[in-house]
Amino acid sequence: VGSERLERAGLDEITADRERGASELARRCLALLAQHARRAPAADADALHAAARAYAHALQGARPSMIPIQNLLERWLASLDAMPRNLEGARSYLESQAHLLIERSRRAVTQAAEHAVALLAPESTLITHSLSSTIREVFRLAAPKGVRAIVTESRPRCEGRALAEHLSTLGVATEYLTDAQMGAFVGQADLAIVGADTVLYDGSAVNKAGTRLLALAARDVGVPFYVCYESPKLCRALPHEVPLEEMAPAELGAPGLAHVTPRNVYFEVTPARLITGWITEHGVCVEWGRTP
Amino acid sequence: VGSERLERAGLDEITADRERGASELARRCLALLAQHARRAPAADADALHAAARAYAHALQGARPSMIPIQNLLERWLASLDAMPRNLEGARSYLESQAHLLIERSRRAVTQAAEHAVALLAPESTLITHSLSSTIREVFRLAAPKGVRAIVTESRPRCEGRALAEHLSTLGVATEYLTDAQMGAFVGQADLAIVGADTVLYDGSAVNKAGTRLLALAARDVGVPFYVCYESPKLCRALPHEVPLEEMAPAELGAPGLAHVTPRNVYFEVTPARLITGWITEHGVCVEWGRTP
Repeated sequence: VGSERLERAGLDEITADRERGASELARRCLALLAQHARRAPAADADALHAAARAYAHALQGARPSMIPIQNLLERWLASLDAMPRNLEGARSYLESQAHLLIERSRRAVTQAAEHAVALLAPESTLITHSLSSTIREVFRLAAPKGVRAIVTESRPRCEGRALAEHLSTLGVATEYLTDAQMGAFVGQADLAIVGADTVLYDGSAVNKAGTRLLALAARDVGVPFYVCYESPKLCRALPHEVPLEEMAPAELGAPGLAHVTPRNVYFEVTPARLITGWITEHGVCVEWGRTP
Repeated sequence: VGSERLERAGLDEITADRERGASELARRCLALLAQHARRAPAADADALHAAARAYAHALQGARPSMIPIQNLLERWLASLDAMPRNLEGARSYLESQAHLLIERSRRAVTQAAEHAVALLAPESTLITHSLSSTIREVFRLAAPKGVRAIVTESRPRCEGRALAEHLSTLGVATEYLTDAQMGAFVGQADLAIVGADTVLYDGSAVNKAGTRLLALAARDVGVPFYVCYESPKLCRALPHEVPLEEMAPAELGAPGLAHVTPRNVYFEVTPARLITGWITEHGVCVEWGRTP
């Protein structure tokens, strides 16, 4: 029962989260798996193995469209085979594998951000949309270069506010816009850069609704548009195979009206043809399929 | 003093209004001028003439970037020269000239909407952004054809809600989106259509921020993008000569943060090259400068 309660709390947290990006949530899932490996009641290593596997699958199933959760937990599941056969050893092993993957993922984020920052001239202006832990990292590393930021609120949940708070802390001069103003301001930026929830097999990027608009507006005024992410976000699916999560329409705060259906599709696909470059921990790729 | 109070109330109303479009406000200005001509204290026709002219100029100055206000009030001012020389006759004349211009403007809106509706196949889907009295009229006339609508909330003030209420009353099946979702949904529309606050000398359209994004997204998926307006919205200015009103940043509801400047530029210019056609009371023009 203790194990079930532990698992339920974790699953509820992951299911309900609307704030964190896919990578951050994937790392949180790994932390939950580490905690579970340490604490879950189990008679022996086999029982722990079964419980750990079931919990990892449940966490994957909680957010099926979040590819980093699928990929990072798959890597952790793959490590189960090499698990020691004694219970205490198994607990420590599973815990350390989870922490290793968390650490590797964090390092990939930082490395991807470093490659992005290398593209920036001092005092350049970056425009972004929504919130991404990778983009937070880009700004953390770029702040000493005197960069400026243009950020969008990102309706309906206004994750852009959290980014604005981060930028305020970093002392980065920031303009904060409604999403609708992206087209009017993109011309003032030197570079547009966004994170991604997933990057698909054809190089198109799944990210918060509005990303495609930023890409279109950037291209129209000749501002390069980059996607910056760590490689566990890569996925073998093509755009038509990707389910795009729709959230509660109540988040729009629209009045209930006959014949009127509020829509709240969080994510959209930005096609590869609108993307200037893909930035990962491995470097900058400006032609899809050519690894840097 | 009675006259001053009358004028002040009207000027305050026009200055403060954030709901009505430029044409509706222009008609409201004419109604205020009619009321003023009827009621303003004046010793004789000359005094009335001077007071009416001053009030019209003050109303023009209240919203300098709203071209229909400039144009319709200019027409009304031009009619002052033919004013009868007796006070009662002058009052009636100015009142009826204002009502004539209001009526003509309303008819132009309906005629422009009729030309737009003629483009629509039955049961087609229209996507629009923000609120425009012309687009309200398009939907009123198109509702019997079984059209469907995709509308945006139009942050920060969400004028799209008023449009959704109108569509609900008309029984038009409507999807209501955040502005950020425009790019994801535009492909489901047969036609994109927006009103305009002003149409500039080069055919570019000044309209609520987000219009340019809709035009870009529509072009990208091959959906035609029309601007529908009555001709008093035409203006001899070019894009770089147009002041774009910025409203109170507090409307974004963003927290006050060091280094972060919320921006609230209401309007933006959508260049003529992104516009498929211009629809006025005179018909549909698909090449700028070639009157229909």
